[in-house]
Amino acid sequence: MNYKYHMPTKVFSGKNCIVANSDVFKTFGSKAMLVTGRSSAKKNGSQHDVITALEQQGIDYVVFDKVMANPTIECAYEGAEFAKANQVYFIVAIGGGSPMDAAKAMALLAKQDIQPEDLFNGQYAEDVLPIIAVPTTAGTGSEVTQYSILTNNLLETKTSIAADILFPKVAFVDAKYMSGLPVTTTINTAVDALSHSVEGMLSIRSSLVSDALAKESIRYFVKAAPAMCDAVGSGDVSLLDETVRQDLMQCAMLAGMVIAQTGTTAVHAMGYSLTYFKDIDHGRANGLLLAEYMAVVQESEPQLVAEILAALGMSELSEFKALLSKLLGEVEVLTKDDVVKFSAKAVAAPAIKGNCKVKPTEDEVNAMFMQAFNLAF
Amino acid sequence: MNYKYHMPTKVFSGKNCIVANSDVFKTFGSKAMLVTGRSSAKKNGSQHDVITALEQQGIDYVVFDKVMANPTIECAYEGAEFAKANQVYFIVAIGGGSPMDAAKAMALLAKQDIQPEDLFNGQYAEDVLPIIAVPTTAGTGSEVTQYSILTNNLLETKTSIAADILFPKVAFVDAKYMSGLPVTTTINTAVDALSHSVEGMLSIRSSLVSDALAKESIRYFVKAAPAMCDAVGSGDVSLLDETVRQDLMQCAMLAGMVIAQTGTTAVHAMGYSLTYFKDIDHGRANGLLLAEYMAVVQESEPQLVAEILAALGMSELSEFKALLSKLLGEVEVLTKDDVVKFSAKAVAAPAIKGNCKVKPTEDEVNAMFMQAFNLAF
Repeated sequence: MNYKYHMPTKVFSGKNCIVANSDVFKTFGSKAMLVTGRSSAKKNGSQHDVITALEQQGIDYVVFDKVMANPTIECAYEGAEFAKANQVYFIVAIGGGSPMDAAKAMALLAKQDIQPEDLFNGQYAEDVLPIIAVPTTAGTGSEVTQYSILTNNLLETKTSIAADILFPKVAFVDAKYMSGLPVTTTINTAVDALSHSVEGMLSIRSSLVSDALAKESIRYFVKAAPAMCDAVGSGDVSLLDETVRQDLMQCAMLAGMVIAQTGTTAVHAMGYSLTYFKDIDHGRANGLLLAEYMAVVQESEPQLVAEILAALGMSELSEFKALLSKLLGEVEVLTKDDVVKFSAKAVAAPAIKGNCKVKPTEDEVNAMFMQAFNLAF
Repeated sequence: MNYKYHMPTKVFSGKNCIVANSDVFKTFGSKAMLVTGRSSAKKNGSQHDVITALEQQGIDYVVFDKVMANPTIECAYEGAEFAKANQVYFIVAIGGGSPMDAAKAMALLAKQDIQPEDLFNGQYAEDVLPIIAVPTTAGTGSEVTQYSILTNNLLETKTSIAADILFPKVAFVDAKYMSGLPVTTTINTAVDALSHSVEGMLSIRSSLVSDALAKESIRYFVKAAPAMCDAVGSGDVSLLDETVRQDLMQCAMLAGMVIAQTGTTAVHAMGYSLTYFKDIDHGRANGLLLAEYMAVVQESEPQLVAEILAALGMSELSEFKALLSKLLGEVEVLTKDDVVKFSAKAVAAPAIKGNCKVKPTEDEVNAMFMQAFNLAF
């Protein structure tokens, strides 16, 4: 019963919740900066809804739409300068994990002078621009976390800024912005969310609160799984209908609430190399490794895996492996040299060193990569 | 999927969590006011632990230990004056619902000039003394809610101040302070917590998040139920051991997180009269009415009740009724005049008017009271 729980973000969920609650924006000041990627927020209607809400409330705004996938530290500094130059009072982050995570770093850097080499040291003052988050994918859960994950070219991996001041003040969770999201992106992000919930249950920081949220999150993934399997088979995005989108959005938000408490574990630590060096999508990278790590956990803590399988409505890990395989398809080509390099990086990562109930050895990490990518031992 | 979720309190749970996290107090200033009842916080060790933590951090403090059960508006004003006179920076509320709820009103009134007639109008500025909550009973969940419930002699009932600024900044949840709590108090408060979770699921403001927390809370009640039944039969408080206390503390905190989202429903609306006019303990009052209200709900929304029964691990409402009856024993004597008066008050209460998925009519409220108190129709 030893745990800490904290998730201060105010969540508004539901169709058209942004415009219906436009008065919320008013409490943060008279000028906003929208932070988003190049185009998707314009296409999916989210940017339009935010602007409608801001205009309804007579709030001025500027747009920073230069966030790339897997945003860099440089991007965060550039956005922070833009925020300062435009004297904005708050940030509205619109998009998937990349714009939300970049926006959090911008919110911090706009108010505090922090050198790049100190950015991940965990020592920050209280000052930050308030953040309002509008997720348009169902994966990261960044709308309800204190994490900003940036690509760190110095360390050749992704690195997290984790600070309570980075929790968005408000999250608007509306699945309608996902309606045009391609099948592959939908699946990759959904698998990321699933990985958050499963890893949350495998974290030493898990608690009865995070576990309750994780199991609920997993149940929403399971509810959406048949439609995702059909869609990946046929390539027909229309199979991912409004109900599926809503289920996935809730799955991802609940999973975000989980990792806000627990952090991630071996799966994310290993997955980051796949993304950094092999350009494998983040959620997909986790999905390729998730069942492998569960198999390692099962050896010493079978009841933990049984609890996760129960939430999945499954009795065998092989069923789960089959589901992930169906969703993710053919795996990428990895060399043994890749594996050795990635394993060494992973075992040094805090998510393995400090956060796993079952801490894999370097040999086990090696074996998980080999297994996941069908390499001979 | 239309809902709002917000629970910003930072929760520390676990044995000795106050002293282990004494640095948390430091962030709120150099002088505190402890708000508590006459004696229990001194006996159960909670006041001692808070003082130890404050002294470790060099924080000065004053003690206001005059909060009575079912605290009055006058008590809240008196404590606020005491806080102002002593120029404290924050409040540490220690005890059951009464000290915590009174402390919240004091925190508000110490910073804002509000006349008694405006105290419940919902219009407050942002200023409030920060509140740290230390529950010593497992019932109210006030440590994680935005409610301050005071006895309102003008309206002859209990009335809530509900404001986001009243969420405690921090809650320290340590079941060890409950170790000496008498069997009857333990059961009454536990039944209050159960009522919060069940009513949360019956509220129009329920959501997937609050339902997940409610079901988990109910499961903890069920886990503790056999020991409570044994203790009530034998009167042996030692049957309520550390594990039972922990389970009940978690049950109550989760249930608090639920009503922070959902509010309460017909059960609380009806129960307040039993407490105000008949001096029946608050939790007991809810427990006497809970199964009756579930029976009313079952008529039009059987699946809702089935979901609650599933969380209880039961298949029939009669099983639940039998459990409550075993825990609560012989009922008090009520007259038909009482029933008529209480029913009229209940149907006018916001918890019935605005918050029930199944809104009972005055006749149904009448019938529930009659049934609960074995009165002939």
